[in-house]
Amino acid sequence: MSGAKAVREDRLWQRHADMAKLGGTPKGGVNRQALSREDSQARKLLASWAEARGFAVFTDAIGNLFVRREGQDADAPPVASGSHMDSQPTGGRFDGMYGVLAAFEALEALEDAGIKTRRPVIAVAWTNEEGSRFQPGAMGSAVFAGHYKLDDMLLVEDWNGVVLKDALAETLRAAPAPMRDGDPGFALGGYVEAHIEQGPRLESERTTIGVVTGIQGSRRFIVQAMGEEAHAGTTPRANRKDAFAAATRIAAAMYEATADADDTLRFTIGRVDVQPGSPNTVPGKASFTIDMRHPSNDVLEAHEKTLRDIVASRAAPCQAKIDRVTAVAPTDFDPKVIDLVRAKADALALSNMDMPSGAGHDAMHIARLCPAGMIFVPCERGVSHNEAENATPADLAAGARVLVAVLEELANR
Amino acid sequence: MSGAKAVREDRLWQRHADMAKLGGTPKGGVNRQALSREDSQARKLLASWAEARGFAVFTDAIGNLFVRREGQDADAPPVASGSHMDSQPTGGRFDGMYGVLAAFEALEALEDAGIKTRRPVIAVAWTNEEGSRFQPGAMGSAVFAGHYKLDDMLLVEDWNGVVLKDALAETLRAAPAPMRDGDPGFALGGYVEAHIEQGPRLESERTTIGVVTGIQGSRRFIVQAMGEEAHAGTTPRANRKDAFAAATRIAAAMYEATADADDTLRFTIGRVDVQPGSPNTVPGKASFTIDMRHPSNDVLEAHEKTLRDIVASRAAPCQAKIDRVTAVAPTDFDPKVIDLVRAKADALALSNMDMPSGAGHDAMHIARLCPAGMIFVPCERGVSHNEAENATPADLAAGARVLVAVLEELANR
Repeated sequence: MSGAKAVREDRLWQRHADMAKLGGTPKGGVNRQALSREDSQARKLLASWAEARGFAVFTDAIGNLFVRREGQDADAPPVASGSHMDSQPTGGRFDGMYGVLAAFEALEALEDAGIKTRRPVIAVAWTNEEGSRFQPGAMGSAVFAGHYKLDDMLLVEDWNGVVLKDALAETLRAAPAPMRDGDPGFALGGYVEAHIEQGPRLESERTTIGVVTGIQGSRRFIVQAMGEEAHAGTTPRANRKDAFAAATRIAAAMYEATADADDTLRFTIGRVDVQPGSPNTVPGKASFTIDMRHPSNDVLEAHEKTLRDIVASRAAPCQAKIDRVTAVAPTDFDPKVIDLVRAKADALALSNMDMPSGAGHDAMHIARLCPAGMIFVPCERGVSHNEAENATPADLAAGARVLVAVLEELANR
Repeated sequence: MSGAKAVREDRLWQRHADMAKLGGTPKGGVNRQALSREDSQARKLLASWAEARGFAVFTDAIGNLFVRREGQDADAPPVASGSHMDSQPTGGRFDGMYGVLAAFEALEALEDAGIKTRRPVIAVAWTNEEGSRFQPGAMGSAVFAGHYKLDDMLLVEDWNGVVLKDALAETLRAAPAPMRDGDPGFALGGYVEAHIEQGPRLESERTTIGVVTGIQGSRRFIVQAMGEEAHAGTTPRANRKDAFAAATRIAAAMYEATADADDTLRFTIGRVDVQPGSPNTVPGKASFTIDMRHPSNDVLEAHEKTLRDIVASRAAPCQAKIDRVTAVAPTDFDPKVIDLVRAKADALALSNMDMPSGAGHDAMHIARLCPAGMIFVPCERGVSHNEAENATPADLAAGARVLVAVLEELANR
């Protein structure tokens, strides 16, 4: 039996259902933010499944969780597959979790089919991909790849002042796993990540498999406007330094400036904080986050300049500043991995199309270390980062079949 | 000795310093929100001072706190003076607290001068004037005056879901006082409230006493925009229903529409809430509060219509609605009380000017029950609802002298 044939749609679907209970919301989504109690529960569950199959489990200093199926050459750099188990505050059941469970299904399918591979095969759950609680996102894979420094990340605080180091220690206490010594990161022979598309293209083109060619670049910013608190009833407009009025002028100009004709630039203000937040006090401070993405680094650069000009010109009589929090350049995946994904989908008679990824993924960091690629499957109406996120058992299993076929070949190279 | 002469500037100033420790902030302001632990502490302190002077203390079902100095005719409706002890989250030491301490100073001055009055004189601390934690504000005085129903107010929740009834019970447990039976409210022979101006006019005109002629009307609203959460990296602009983008369009249009030529309309967006508040998720919901004030009810009415038109026309592709939370009509104070305040300021050789109040005060509700008026004293640069709020001991004492003179005369009518 081939590894692809050994993939079990029912088992993979049931694992999604089991995981969706951890942080499950009344609307059918999940709230399983990075290094929360729910994240611990997911780690424990994955580790228990791994141990039941006799796979080795270990973690590293940023909390990435690895499940290893041994190869004939234990010293050969393993091939890896995975994604993340943390979610948005009102996230879906499939974003990230599918990539982890598809990788684990691949390990089980190889095991069930009695297939030996030269290289070990690893399923990995990267820490804090979403970046909704601790910024920046894709943190675990970025530390693994050496893009961010471990020590810097351990000191990051969430919006409530909780330090990542403490949240991580608590998470690992609740879901213990053997710790790999030293800084995160080790040699890999290849990496393939499965993920729901999080966009509408596969569904609208009635295609099962997205052969992902690369990931658009992204930049994140924080804009802060500083004014002066004042009484809402007595302070004339001429005397006001209203920080939210300034933030509104800035945001309105930014929405206008980022409305490109071909609708390729992605511009999002996702988090807004206005202080002191009293209905009858003129706001003294207002801040908001910007998430901006485009496949071309030049376009991102030009728009960053525009955003900076807007902040400088629209703030008066308040002060305002814009700080770049992260910049991730566009990623091009390895042509050989792209070709392999397409070839395996064809061999399994699964409809497929080449496409770039609109979202960032852990694969963008791991692609710096080894030949890497991604496999997309459709999600309903393209809805993601939403409790209504959905996918079909058949599509999820199809993606896992392509994945196991690709991993098997990479693990024997 | 007259009551005015018995006012002690040092005592009044010290009481402000003592109260400023309760909820004191590093920047010298206070955070003593309604029915908080700090509010309890202030109640306890005021009651302890009252008991030390032999004044009766009691409370009512909405938590208004009364200190009563007996009159010769115990059955005559008392005259009252007071304000509030709760503050904005980043408030100052004088807003509200001055009116309570000036009224208490008036009681002490009458006592020290051995003055007997026909009517009892009451100093009162009204519950929750600020409305920054529990809306609507001026709640205690409004319930006392029958403008809001007690039962409705007891069910109000703060932004964290704490029910007012529970916060009130906790506050009264921590600062017990004899409870007056029945619904709040009893007959009054007159009411005069002292307050810092919270605006720049007295200071800029080098005038000590503001003879307050009335209070501008105010209306509060909540605007809510409903969109759809979506992934910030993958969702094209054409497919987005971005609730914060809609809120920005609405807010920008409102700021523009409320920029009246004579700068009399007060328009403030003070609290903003964007959900789910993740940097890489398109917001599904955005809401903000509006506080709008003007001396003319017709102007308020016309602008409310404009706000409604803006919400209806700018929300697409989101849905949006605007709800009016409160409407308080402009207040005209009693001409006889206004004349009395002016006459007593003149008699004390204190510079004075007639002026309307830009801010709302508890006096606007009590003016429905009995002849009422207000006394303003200057505050530094007109700054209020701000930790930097400041006033001079001499001005505070001057206002208290006018107050005791006015109360003495009203209490003998």
